[in-house]
Amino acid sequence: MNCEIIAVGSELLTPWRQDTNSLFLTEELNAVGVSVRFKTIVGDRRADLAGAVRTALGRTDILIVMGGLGPTEDDLSREAVAEALKMGLRRDGSLVAALSARFAARRMTMTDNNLKQADVIEGAVVLPNPNGTAPGQWMDTSFEGFRKLVMLIPGPPGECRPLFEEQCLPRLREVIPVRHIARRTLKATMIGESSADALLAPIYSTYPDVETTILAGNCEIQLQLACARATPEAAQARVDELAGKLEEALDEYVFASQGETLEQIVLYYLELKQATLAVAESCTGGMLGERITSVSGSSRSFLGGALVYSDALKTAFCGVALELLAEHGAVSTPVAEAMADGIRRHTGATFGMGITGIAGPGGGSDEKPVGRVYIALSDAYGTECSENNFRGDRQKVRQWATQKALDMLRRRMILYR
Amino acid sequence: MNCEIIAVGSELLTPWRQDTNSLFLTEELNAVGVSVRFKTIVGDRRADLAGAVRTALGRTDILIVMGGLGPTEDDLSREAVAEALKMGLRRDGSLVAALSARFAARRMTMTDNNLKQADVIEGAVVLPNPNGTAPGQWMDTSFEGFRKLVMLIPGPPGECRPLFEEQCLPRLREVIPVRHIARRTLKATMIGESSADALLAPIYSTYPDVETTILAGNCEIQLQLACARATPEAAQARVDELAGKLEEALDEYVFASQGETLEQIVLYYLELKQATLAVAESCTGGMLGERITSVSGSSRSFLGGALVYSDALKTAFCGVALELLAEHGAVSTPVAEAMADGIRRHTGATFGMGITGIAGPGGGSDEKPVGRVYIALSDAYGTECSENNFRGDRQKVRQWATQKALDMLRRRMILYR
Repeated sequence: MNCEIIAVGSELLTPWRQDTNSLFLTEELNAVGVSVRFKTIVGDRRADLAGAVRTALGRTDILIVMGGLGPTEDDLSREAVAEALKMGLRRDGSLVAALSARFAARRMTMTDNNLKQADVIEGAVVLPNPNGTAPGQWMDTSFEGFRKLVMLIPGPPGECRPLFEEQCLPRLREVIPVRHIARRTLKATMIGESSADALLAPIYSTYPDVETTILAGNCEIQLQLACARATPEAAQARVDELAGKLEEALDEYVFASQGETLEQIVLYYLELKQATLAVAESCTGGMLGERITSVSGSSRSFLGGALVYSDALKTAFCGVALELLAEHGAVSTPVAEAMADGIRRHTGATFGMGITGIAGPGGGSDEKPVGRVYIALSDAYGTECSENNFRGDRQKVRQWATQKALDMLRRRMILYR
Repeated sequence: MNCEIIAVGSELLTPWRQDTNSLFLTEELNAVGVSVRFKTIVGDRRADLAGAVRTALGRTDILIVMGGLGPTEDDLSREAVAEALKMGLRRDGSLVAALSARFAARRMTMTDNNLKQADVIEGAVVLPNPNGTAPGQWMDTSFEGFRKLVMLIPGPPGECRPLFEEQCLPRLREVIPVRHIARRTLKATMIGESSADALLAPIYSTYPDVETTILAGNCEIQLQLACARATPEAAQARVDELAGKLEEALDEYVFASQGETLEQIVLYYLELKQATLAVAESCTGGMLGERITSVSGSSRSFLGGALVYSDALKTAFCGVALELLAEHGAVSTPVAEAMADGIRRHTGATFGMGITGIAGPGGGSDEKPVGRVYIALSDAYGTECSENNFRGDRQKVRQWATQKALDMLRRRMILYR
């Protein structure tokens, strides 16, 4: 079955706001075998909305209208859907009572416009919304002789998402044929999208029943696999079989086989080895530490480190010799290595990492262009350093630098096995 | 005049991809007085797309079809728009020659499907696309007796955006009435959206000719002002007049009057005062340093600092006394102050900042719940500390902590004036 999602709200037609609920809804719908065929975004005008609803009912089986259920004059979804379906609205007594009670409990006066939220389209089931004042509505109805499922759900993410999961999905599952879908997400880094695809296409193309999507972004590649079967076990087995082959082909480039982040994987290995990490960051200015500490529980393995933006601090916190800085410059292999080694010794960590480079847009030269970043990794057995030339703007260069740093550490720990 | 944007591509109907070009296009369209009335997202099916084009032409004056211009079988925008307009396609000889030359220059063989990109709808003007193989198309045509402007533009952002600016906008400006629009963006922080609106609505509601939008997000509030007038000067004067009054009402909460980021403003004041900054971060793990160093040129004022995630490093890098840690705990006012003071003395910076807190989701207690963050600011005249209780998940608590830290520093520097 297929579906159209209409997101309602004039703010969604400005340059500053975007519907993101529909991504969540799409994932949930796909998981029960419903594909999203159209998405429409329409402002708070009743005629526009009623027209969009008619268009949608004319081309898909399921319609989800999101937003426009609040108490203001601009909230017109109930009226517009009723108009498109040529149905009436009735004011629901128990919803009026619930609204009154809600306002009374908060010692607030309920103005008349709030009563709109008690209006229910003829034949609709009211979907309770414990997170807000406007309930949702569910209709199993017909339009021009065809059966249609129509849902009205609130727009704020904190109301939309739980209401859809708790009220709409179970009703959808009752109506549509049962399919079981299994999914896997593999992630790889430091390999380009086209190189990965050249490697993988000959494999996944022999599994036409497994939907394979390659996404590139945030310095990594994601492989999304999905397969539908009559039983969950059969679906999972088929996805796992393809995942295993793709993982083998990608070899050391794969860092996650169940959708984990690179930070999570690095922390997982650190903990497994009871090892600790300290960092010395120059051009990334804290981004590496920030990424690692974004994971809850990172304090078990991450000691901290130093932001050695100035040369003086490279010496003070990492013991980088002044002569080294003078001879090679702050952006150089010897300085990166001295930073990694110094921060490791200074903190007593198992691993020390040092990053120094030219993030741009200024500061580049012919010899050391913007994007040149030295990343060093030190442990008791020695120090290695990579010279990198990252492309992109300042933020992109810094993102790539932290990604490469995390990946160097991951690879080092895998070799230890 | 009003417009519909149709984004074409099945990937835009998955949970993982979202059209973002339309936000850019909307801003450009608004600036010449065109409002976006509908946005539609449709997959790579010819019938779906032709239907969506007919629907759009039936409800708006201007139609922008974005994507689906590539060489593959899935790229169907040319065919679908021609079908909806009941027009033919002709293969353009000069475009075929240009494609052949492009492939020859790259020493690549051109396959037949590439020739699709030389197909032009009857009566359409070809819009050169120096950034890709598929040119855009512009039509000043009619549909069911009404004049319509129709544009086909490529989907990749690096092609879509320059082509729209260089080829479509000048043609639009020739066709639609001239209006001059002036804009201003004010930003404020550490004030809630509803408090700000209560303060500001009585002011901006007396300027109905200036479109005022309040947006909340990323720990700050943005006020977007826009006004159209016959001359640029008149528009600017009107926007500036309202901006001045709103700034006065928001007083110390406003940090930017021309859309600057908080990081940029802090660095601006640091440079103005020839002052330097060093940071000691615990729960934010580098996020404060990362935010500051995201601004190019930050090395002139930012020395660096320490990531003192472990207690031992709080002592080693900031000289926090062991007794202080034992007596008050790592998350406390005395420790935050000792971190700020210690990092300032250790680095010789004008200002030192210390952040220690409980980002969650674990680690909270009745006495010190998740979200409790102590932020201290130290300079030669003394040390101040704020106790905060931020709400939200781990990342949100950390974002608020860095925002508050930057704002404390901004306020301190303003008081110095």
